Amino acid sequence: MEKMRTPRNHARSFLESVASSESVGYSSTQSSHRLLAYSDALLSIIATVMILPVAHTKFQDNESIQALLTTKIAVYLMTFLIVTVAWAAHIRLFQVIERIDDTLALLNLACMMLITFLPYTFSLMATFPSYTLGILLFCACVMVIGLIQAMIVLYGFSRPFFLNDQIQMSENQAYYKRRILEVIMRVPIMCLFASIFSFIFIPLSYIILAVVIFLPYISQCLKWIRSKAIGGEMPFYTYHPSEPLSKERVEAFSDGVYAIVATLLILDICEGNVPDPSVVKKEFDNSLIDALQEYGPEYLAYFGSFATVGLLWFVHHSLFLHVTKATRLMGLFNTFSLAFVGGLPLAYQLTHEFPRGSRNELEAVQISCVIIFFAGLFQLAMWVTALFTERETLHPYVRYGGREHTFMLAKLSLYPCVALGTFVFTCVLSRFSTSIFHMMEIGVPFAFLLLRLLVRVALAVIRLLFSVVREELKSFCSPYSTEMHKSVVGFFAS
Amino acid sequence: MEKMRTPRNHARSFLESVASSESVGYSSTQSSHRLLAYSDALLSIIATVMILPVAHTKFQDNESIQALLTTKIAVYLMTFLIVTVAWAAHIRLFQVIERIDDTLALLNLACMMLITFLPYTFSLMATFPSYTLGILLFCACVMVIGLIQAMIVLYGFSRPFFLNDQIQMSENQAYYKRRILEVIMRVPIMCLFASIFSFIFIPLSYIILAVVIFLPYISQCLKWIRSKAIGGEMPFYTYHPSEPLSKERVEAFSDGVYAIVATLLILDICEGNVPDPSVVKKEFDNSLIDALQEYGPEYLAYFGSFATVGLLWFVHHSLFLHVTKATRLMGLFNTFSLAFVGGLPLAYQLTHEFPRGSRNELEAVQISCVIIFFAGLFQLAMWVTALFTERETLHPYVRYGGREHTFMLAKLSLYPCVALGTFVFTCVLSRFSTSIFHMMEIGVPFAFLLLRLLVRVALAVIRLLFSVVREELKSFCSPYSTEMHKSVVGFFAS
Repeated sequence: MEKMRTPRNHARSFLESVASSESVGYSSTQSSHRLLAYSDALLSIIATVMILPVAHTKFQDNESIQALLTTKIAVYLMTFLIVTVAWAAHIRLFQVIERIDDTLALLNLACMMLITFLPYTFSLMATFPSYTLGILLFCACVMVIGLIQAMIVLYGFSRPFFLNDQIQMSENQAYYKRRILEVIMRVPIMCLFASIFSFIFIPLSYIILAVVIFLPYISQCLKWIRSKAIGGEMPFYTYHPSEPLSKERVEAFSDGVYAIVATLLILDICEGNVPDPSVVKKEFDNSLIDALQEYGPEYLAYFGSFATVGLLWFVHHSLFLHVTKATRLMGLFNTFSLAFVGGLPLAYQLTHEFPRGSRNELEAVQISCVIIFFAGLFQLAMWVTALFTERETLHPYVRYGGREHTFMLAKLSLYPCVALGTFVFTCVLSRFSTSIFHMMEIGVPFAFLLLRLLVRVALAVIRLLFSVVREELKSFCSPYSTEMHKSVVGFFAS
Repeated sequence: MEKMRTPRNHARSFLESVASSESVGYSSTQSSHRLLAYSDALLSIIATVMILPVAHTKFQDNESIQALLTTKIAVYLMTFLIVTVAWAAHIRLFQVIERIDDTLALLNLACMMLITFLPYTFSLMATFPSYTLGILLFCACVMVIGLIQAMIVLYGFSRPFFLNDQIQMSENQAYYKRRILEVIMRVPIMCLFASIFSFIFIPLSYIILAVVIFLPYISQCLKWIRSKAIGGEMPFYTYHPSEPLSKERVEAFSDGVYAIVATLLILDICEGNVPDPSVVKKEFDNSLIDALQEYGPEYLAYFGSFATVGLLWFVHHSLFLHVTKATRLMGLFNTFSLAFVGGLPLAYQLTHEFPRGSRNELEAVQISCVIIFFAGLFQLAMWVTALFTERETLHPYVRYGGREHTFMLAKLSLYPCVALGTFVFTCVLSRFSTSIFHMMEIGVPFAFLLLRLLVRVALAVIRLLFSVVREELKSFCSPYSTEMHKSVVGFFAS
């Protein structure tokens, strides 16, 4: 019996599924979760790999590092900012469109393809600032991205089951659609103007482009000022720029940056540090150990840098455990912090590049300290911002202090303090070397474990003090009424 | 009143949290989700970047590509396999330990640091196969990783609230602990033997190492054979190698590989294809367009390769939408598919390296076709495997055919077919060029949209045929009893 029934069921459900899926149109709808994770990975890697042209700059020992690198670093920071602006726009877009189908997935991939091309067109523009072609290419890229995003919106609104539930149920979908299209098309239209002006007066194009890049932040400021001045609430739900970023996507993007930075380090080792068998035979008398000793400083630099990246990730991870939502300002600080983390391959490259005792060696350590200092400082800034809006952004159990709270602050201030201390050392001691620096980097994880102990001891002392004070108060207050006693303890504890 | 109470509450909850968190020990326990996502990102990137030394090989036009690349590709494939074995072990470990704290997070980061070092030690070993030092370094790396993982297990079992609920509630935790430690320490102990034998008889060391790498698959086969022969169930729950892999982590790892491959492509463009202003001035008479035209083939190659990576990701994404669990065999096919996807930067490099019409140009296209063919074929193999165990691995709605089912097969067979077709073309037509190849690559996305239409038409035809047959049966059966009619229809439909 059982055997007889199964095949018939197969056939029926096959026919049914053919018939039903055709009519409903829901069948091919998918959750957008993985598409977004993939986009985050792509965007974070593309934002960060632009450090490689900076890190691979060749130095002569008599040149100053700063002079050579300033322009290149500026280009890196700008592309990082541009990619993160594109990423933020992508987040907002997919807060409106929550479900996807194959067509939307393909459109998104096309959009990604052009976004990965943005850094190249930007660096072309930066290398040839006085050529019209550079500006045109960059603007064309931005405009096509805008058009694809507009297509995604139009497609999404033509099949409302893709949309965010709130918009799906709202009555004025047409209003939302127009409003979102306006916001999206603002950037391509400004780029159109920039490309037109590039034929007439190039500096004006650059001013327009600068406005485009900083537009989200400017418009947020304006809205904030207006809301303070008028006191009104904005009527528009999901698409205004001060909407908190999804915590999940901020984490995914940050993870991507930390992961690619950690692996760019080993990539250099794998490509450059495997000696040639013939060289080993000739120059090192067939001794592989001697040949590898040449690379000693690089291994140390690798382990030091990896420890730093790993621990900065660890601090970021601890921070986001307590966070429930990321406000725009926190997102901005996160971007800045990540931009400095992306600079670590440069620090790694610099700190093993120069022979011991050269003038550049100290300078390299100082640059590394600056990079680490700011990466840590912006993480701290994120935490401070979160504390200011703690009702929105933090889990209840960390809001009002407690051990986790204290420990978090200690964790966050560790890297800025160590980096600052090292910087001061390099100014005072002239015999500070990169190997000491790397040993310090490797030593910091143990400082974390030590920190945990220290915080515990400090809190135990505080608790002891409090209980002593309380005991004293109790013995002191006993003749008085219990009410009185309570208010005194309360006053003291506050 | 309200204002008075708040600060007092603060102080009390501060004290309480200090007191309570100290005693319970749960406070610092965290979900391991993000740690695993970060580890997946790191491992996938490290597995894939090893293609770069292969892709950056410099060719003379009169040398044969195959001869030069064979060893390098073998090294790449082996490191890919080693990293995926380490990744699978990492999955199993964190299926036992489901919650983490700071110490476990730091131990995991240390473990990651050494895993990123594995490819380097392996390529050192492969470059100097007859040196003891290479084997020693590789084995030392593996042994330290094993020790750290054993520490993670010991730490996890010392605080049972970190463990998987099933083990946490089980009565023989000690048995689990011993068993898991045995499985983990098997690999380092074999490496210890390999390093000892490297002083005596090097080939034996290599045999042992080969066994180590293929151990998971061998032991799975043995267990499978035993279970078939004896028919008994294995008593051990979470730690045997045939446990299905977590779908989430397979997706995260695959996304990492696809993302890094897509961005390695643009990295080459950004580093190599921004012309030098002085060169433009001298050689191209200050015309940027002329200078950029030099790079024409590379842009085409970039867009073509990006489209291919993006679409292979898209197929993978569609596939995993229907999958609920990945069996070990599916995981193996996924690894193979990803290993070939990781080869795409090589295909990109080869197809724009050679001048038009050279002998190597055709060879480059053929190598690219082989890479794409196998990447697609192993995806198809994953789907076929999933169909064989559909009750475990597939969502109910795709199990018995239907439109999605057919469409999935069509999607999966597209790339192998196109690649095979192109390969045959290159053998027949001698005038096939890389630009045609790249145009084809860019054209495939449109084929996907076309496919959707074709599948719909085909299914509509089938449905029409079925309904015609049914009508005929109905008119034919009407004189007989309804019972009879049903069984005939059922028979026919099956």
